[in-house]
Amino acid sequence: MSRAGAPAPRFISFEGIDGSGKSTQARRLAETLRAAGHEVVLTREPGGSPGAEEVRRLLLEGDPDRWSAETEILLFTAARRDHLERTIRPALDRGAVVICDRFADSTRLYQGARGDDLRDKVDALHALMIGVEPDLTVLIDVAPETGLARAVARHGGEMRFESFGAELQRTMRAGFLDLAETAPGRFVVFDGDTAPGDLAKQIGDLVLPRLGRASGSPSDTPSTPDRA
Amino acid sequence: MSRAGAPAPRFISFEGIDGSGKSTQARRLAETLRAAGHEVVLTREPGGSPGAEEVRRLLLEGDPDRWSAETEILLFTAARRDHLERTIRPALDRGAVVICDRFADSTRLYQGARGDDLRDKVDALHALMIGVEPDLTVLIDVAPETGLARAVARHGGEMRFESFGAELQRTMRAGFLDLAETAPGRFVVFDGDTAPGDLAKQIGDLVLPRLGRASGSPSDTPSTPDRA
Repeated sequence: MSRAGAPAPRFISFEGIDGSGKSTQARRLAETLRAAGHEVVLTREPGGSPGAEEVRRLLLEGDPDRWSAETEILLFTAARRDHLERTIRPALDRGAVVICDRFADSTRLYQGARGDDLRDKVDALHALMIGVEPDLTVLIDVAPETGLARAVARHGGEMRFESFGAELQRTMRAGFLDLAETAPGRFVVFDGDTAPGDLAKQIGDLVLPRLGRASGSPSDTPSTPDRA
Repeated sequence: MSRAGAPAPRFISFEGIDGSGKSTQARRLAETLRAAGHEVVLTREPGGSPGAEEVRRLLLEGDPDRWSAETEILLFTAARRDHLERTIRPALDRGAVVICDRFADSTRLYQGARGDDLRDKVDALHALMIGVEPDLTVLIDVAPETGLARAVARHGGEMRFESFGAELQRTMRAGFLDLAETAPGRFVVFDGDTAPGDLAKQIGDLVLPRLGRASGSPSDTPSTPDRA
């Protein structure tokens, strides 16, 4: 997991199957970095900007067969483009760290798995309209059964993409690990069965030293939900 | 304007600048074909299917700067993909004639004009995710001043894409004529200053003989707004 000489990871995505604990860990990393004086924008996909949140609603509400896989890929990419332009780029430009709960890798895996040539379409769309990858992707790897049990226990409102069961969880876990192997300079894989506090410390210990000195100090950065 | 030997034009789009009269002529052609016993699906873009109509609302409502040109292109393409899958293809598959008020050419022109490499992006997205052109595109050509005066007189609710004025109308008119020259086998250009009844007859005289015998007869096809 050593990435000596890698640039400061200012755009960080968290990926993993549902119930992997990635959202919790993304939030804890944001807290750690803020405590060290960094401005952090904690965001998520699909969504993360007013326009992208409206597209999110189209994607997550209603009948699961509401959109074909192809239309879904286009809507995810539209939301991502808006999120990138309105939230991520402006934050990076002013020196903030951006922590994003899911980014393009989730589309590669979840939408790309829906048909033979769909992964190619996702990649082509990404190259054409997005063209940006995170500096660092934290992949939280858990056993599919663990993830599924946590996701079912949580049972939040938006179960649409979580309603496909254990087989999908297994396929997605393997897919994320394969993806991590193809981009070892970007991915770092963590064991999601680690106790949350210990895992948060491991991730903080990876990221914080690489960011260098914060431009602000903890005392002069107000704490708000999405930006401190 | 002769296209001897061309296949029966079962997927027909109408294009032209705002106020060209294309929507009126699309409707009149639908009436003509229905009266001759053809099943006709009269539809429009953006929109034309329940999902695409929701994307249409995102595109046409709110602040004109709500979306960047790139996000807009993605949303138009998402709406078109849905429209194609849910409305156009099923109609063509059962033997209906589809008449569409605007299709991909409008995106090429209006969104493609918003920046240097945007036309290339529109074309690449179309090739990747749509890949279909109408059999026949009826381009209604009018002077920009005529179109603008008609559009302003109408002043419907959705003026967003009509609010850019005379210079845009001139650019778009020239763009449509250029596009027609690049695809002479698909486009037929009509003079939009012709009286509407005469123009409707000219278009009907072009299309009807090429469609061959209708499968139904006028008496056994009920007349509804979108399908007769």
